[in-house]
Amino acid sequence: MKTLQTYIDKLNALNFKDMYNGDFFLTWEKSDDELEAVFTLADALRYMRENNISTKVFESGLGISLFRDNSTRTRFSFASACNLLGLEVQDLDEGKSQIAHGETVRETANMISFMADVIGIRDDMYIGKGNAYMHEVVDSVTEGKQNGILEQKPTLVNLQCDIDHPTQAMADMLHIIHEFGGVENLKGKKLAMTWAYSPSYGKPLSVPQGIVGLMTRFGMDVTLAHPEGYEIFSDVEAVAKENAAKSGGSFTKTNDMAEAFKDADIVYPKSWAPFAAMEKRTELYGEGDTEGIAALEKELLAQNAKHKDWACTEDLMKLTKEGKALYMHCLPADITGVSCDEGEVDASVFDRYRDPLYKEASYKPYIIAAMIFLAKFADPADVLKKLEEKGTPRIFD
Amino acid sequence: MKTLQTYIDKLNALNFKDMYNGDFFLTWEKSDDELEAVFTLADALRYMRENNISTKVFESGLGISLFRDNSTRTRFSFASACNLLGLEVQDLDEGKSQIAHGETVRETANMISFMADVIGIRDDMYIGKGNAYMHEVVDSVTEGKQNGILEQKPTLVNLQCDIDHPTQAMADMLHIIHEFGGVENLKGKKLAMTWAYSPSYGKPLSVPQGIVGLMTRFGMDVTLAHPEGYEIFSDVEAVAKENAAKSGGSFTKTNDMAEAFKDADIVYPKSWAPFAAMEKRTELYGEGDTEGIAALEKELLAQNAKHKDWACTEDLMKLTKEGKALYMHCLPADITGVSCDEGEVDASVFDRYRDPLYKEASYKPYIIAAMIFLAKFADPADVLKKLEEKGTPRIFD
Amino acid sequence: MKTLQTYIDKLNALNFKDMYNGDFFLTWEKSDDELEAVFTLADALRYMRENNISTKVFESGLGISLFRDNSTRTRFSFASACNLLGLEVQDLDEGKSQIAHGETVRETANMISFMADVIGIRDDMYIGKGNAYMHEVVDSVTEGKQNGILEQKPTLVNLQCDIDHPTQAMADMLHIIHEFGGVENLKGKKLAMTWAYSPSYGKPLSVPQGIVGLMTRFGMDVTLAHPEGYEIFSDVEAVAKENAAKSGGSFTKTNDMAEAFKDADIVYPKSWAPFAAMEKRTELYGEGDTEGIAALEKELLAQNAKHKDWACTEDLMKLTKEGKALYMHCLPADITGVSCDEGEVDASVFDRYRDPLYKEASYKPYIIAAMIFLAKFADPADVLKKLEEKGTPRIFD
Repeated sequence: MKTLQTYIDKLNALNFKDMYNGDFFLTWEKSDDELEAVFTLADALRYMRENNISTKVFESGLGISLFRDNSTRTRFSFASACNLLGLEVQDLDEGKSQIAHGETVRETANMISFMADVIGIRDDMYIGKGNAYMHEVVDSVTEGKQNGILEQKPTLVNLQCDIDHPTQAMADMLHIIHEFGGVENLKGKKLAMTWAYSPSYGKPLSVPQGIVGLMTRFGMDVTLAHPEGYEIFSDVEAVAKENAAKSGGSFTKTNDMAEAFKDADIVYPKSWAPFAAMEKRTELYGEGDTEGIAALEKELLAQNAKHKDWACTEDLMKLTKEGKALYMHCLPADITGVSCDEGEVDASVFDRYRDPLYKEASYKPYIIAAMIFLAKFADPADVLKKLEEKGTPRIFD
Repeated sequence: MKTLQTYIDKLNALNFKDMYNGDFFLTWEKSDDELEAVFTLADALRYMRENNISTKVFESGLGISLFRDNSTRTRFSFASACNLLGLEVQDLDEGKSQIAHGETVRETANMISFMADVIGIRDDMYIGKGNAYMHEVVDSVTEGKQNGILEQKPTLVNLQCDIDHPTQAMADMLHIIHEFGGVENLKGKKLAMTWAYSPSYGKPLSVPQGIVGLMTRFGMDVTLAHPEGYEIFSDVEAVAKENAAKSGGSFTKTNDMAEAFKDADIVYPKSWAPFAAMEKRTELYGEGDTEGIAALEKELLAQNAKHKDWACTEDLMKLTKEGKALYMHCLPADITGVSCDEGEVDASVFDRYRDPLYKEASYKPYIIAAMIFLAKFADPADVLKKLEEKGTPRIFD
Repeated sequence: MKTLQTYIDKLNALNFKDMYNGDFFLTWEKSDDELEAVFTLADALRYMRENNISTKVFESGLGISLFRDNSTRTRFSFASACNLLGLEVQDLDEGKSQIAHGETVRETANMISFMADVIGIRDDMYIGKGNAYMHEVVDSVTEGKQNGILEQKPTLVNLQCDIDHPTQAMADMLHIIHEFGGVENLKGKKLAMTWAYSPSYGKPLSVPQGIVGLMTRFGMDVTLAHPEGYEIFSDVEAVAKENAAKSGGSFTKTNDMAEAFKDADIVYPKSWAPFAAMEKRTELYGEGDTEGIAALEKELLAQNAKHKDWACTEDLMKLTKEGKALYMHCLPADITGVSCDEGEVDASVFDRYRDPLYKEASYKPYIIAAMIFLAKFADPADVLKKLEEKGTPRIFD
């Protein structure tokens, strides 16, 4: 039976000192030990909550969220993570605020951060923008701290940018680790990150990019499959190749969904938009060319429609390892006959994997909390120990 | 002089064990002891707050609110109740969220509930929908808990559905109990729940239904009065009849407002829409027939206009017991000459009863907090005792 | 080296007993001792936060915010202040709420206040309305407390009305006090509150009014400069004259920006709308004359355009004391070539003063927290002492 000490011992064996006072932008900017620390701390926090041990480490402080795209699950995951640690969420609603009225990012970043310990941002719509914006925010508050404006530097958690979706990919990975009984069991396992048809358009690339950018680090054989023309960001493919080489796994590409599913242990079929098209869309947006954007959307929908055969069907699932590959999705999925006529996955497949899919999502609040925790405490293992000794119950008893 | 022990003793004499881990949908699904437990705990929590004893039983946790209809008082009552117990309110704004985009209720319910202890929902606009939706949510999170997705099952508090408005009716009842010096004094008292004219249209039926569904349980003579054609949900009338029979009171109906006011101890004049019309409206809504809805609205406003004589005037008040019946309303009221030209109540009547009306409303946060408390603790009386012993002040002293 | 005791001793030497259970509308309604108490307590709270001593004095309670005008910094300052003391912010969104639907201010004020300890309101758009509305709210909750509706009277913090912007002016003043090493060093210093050109229109007068209404109390020579026709509220000018006479300083007016800058120690160049025009706009608004409002806006923009020479340029800065006057602004500023083609200040001037400007803004959360603290505790000095003895860390250690 697990005890908190097992997590503490694991943490004490890892080197993640550079995460202290740091931020979380992209998984491939972090060392293996640092990622392992996030997974371990996430599990530890979950263990403590399940055992009614409060992990409230902040008596006061704000967790600021800025969502430039709709979100339910990530919004609630961030709110849950902040609340678990004692931070109150304050939403920066650019509608309500004056940001649109000529305020610079630098100024706003400082003005909202006087008592902010965390800033979570989702900005995934435009290529080359989201991640850059997050860096601008972090540079601003770092300078603010250095110049004596801010008493603390809020830590940034990337809640999805144009390049990566680290809280999603990390939650997905923690799910895999638990499903397969530990990182040590992943070597040689085959994971298929494949494109799938959706009637909607312009889904962010940060999920497939985040998945191949992370999953290639654990010795797995990762296959990226999509129709021609649906390439992802080439820089991320380069990262995946490098990861695979280092980890003793592999990273391969194919335009054949069946080939990707063949003998796969894990399949992640999901729609996304072509990187080139998203780049063009960003340009058009920059030029305020709404007609051009509408035309591009029409074009892309037509292009998508040519690939309705890219769906996670029962037949395709039969090709996977013993027909029992772990089906994954960031949710919500476009379920054929449920949320749309023709979509990413057969209803029967989705139904069979509903519980694992929900479980997969359940890790995200803990992943976010762990990222915050590691940025705020020089010796998180010691803090866990003291919290256990203190033994304040989460719910009164 | 009251002490906390009096409330504790009262609780220990009641059987409400089935409320533990339960939900609150409709008052008539609860036993007399269970309702009594809610009233007692509400009074106890108020006593503790008034005596600066903290009742913060959660170190962390979310209270999720979903309002599908405008609300000020219920929104703030829910926020106050959650805050009083230590839960942070997180609003599920379907505008901001992806619910509209094909997500199933089941999925959303689980995705928002990983760290949620309470879900409060207001969904009162469409007959046959609101209460059903709440059950769908509860079934989803109950399954989620059973399947190991959720670490806790959030408890649902019905903040107004198409059938009942339990937090309103319970707050109203607690007000009556205090005004008349105890439940034991209510036998034989006459309460008139009457329709009243309002220039607006389509007010929910859940208030009159909630009132007759609850107030008939205390041995009172409850009269429901409305013009012909303004019938409420017949199933709720059946509940009221049954309650009255059991409690030794009575439930009568009339189409004469004066008859209802005659010798009444309590009057509750309020506008509502005819049940049949609301059913039709729901159908039209389902068919997306906006023209039909507009036509129906016009028709109903014309029908309302025929009954402007249904108003709580000074003359009508004179008919009540010694002309001093307790005037009640869920607020906001349509006050003749104040908020409209012709409305539910004379300004002079409303003014005379303003303080009791505000007092009536003041019970709602405590009723909600009590509902949550009873669902979260197996032995609430023991928790109250320990909180008193701990004696943490709400405001530092 | 400062210790908390120095702040406590300072507080104990001041008379501010009338602030207990009070509200904060206008700075000139407060005594010198009372203002000094706010400054001292703000510094003390900052000292404690910087030294990781929790100042959470509320275990539960709501801080209600009502913003009738856009706001980022004031919104976050209020949220930060409430959070620092343990109050949860609940936004009263008149869109979401039923206020628009005929509810009286009195009723709403009570309905939201059952568990509210603070109400912060920004209502600065219409002359004669904002401050009056705040008084209506305070009268309502005061009566509610007296009549046994409310268990506590929430304290009102004016987050900007049509007359004054006390949290801004107080934060600005605390900044000046720190920049000049204490109030005692301000005698004879020259402060220039001057109009400046902005391409936008109708900026509130409450900032210039708040500045001259407050800064004239410390023996400074305060000059108000603006083009003809840009007069501020004459009642506030009268207050400034009176203050200056009492404090041994002076209050002068000029239509010459250079004259105002000449030998100034502090300059505060900022755009505002003419008082007379704002009065007219309020009338038009009352009459629902949107065409009239559009016409007025056009007229005022044309009038503004005649005064583009009213800008804080490097040349003008050279005229100030040793060319090194402290440049101040409430932010966001209209920066020439950055946020607009021609605006209030040269980019080079703004850049040089960015850190002081941000520091200036950083005092606002503490000023608001101090205002709340002084209204809630009869002996705040004693509370500070006990909080230090208790020594709960803000962040776990």
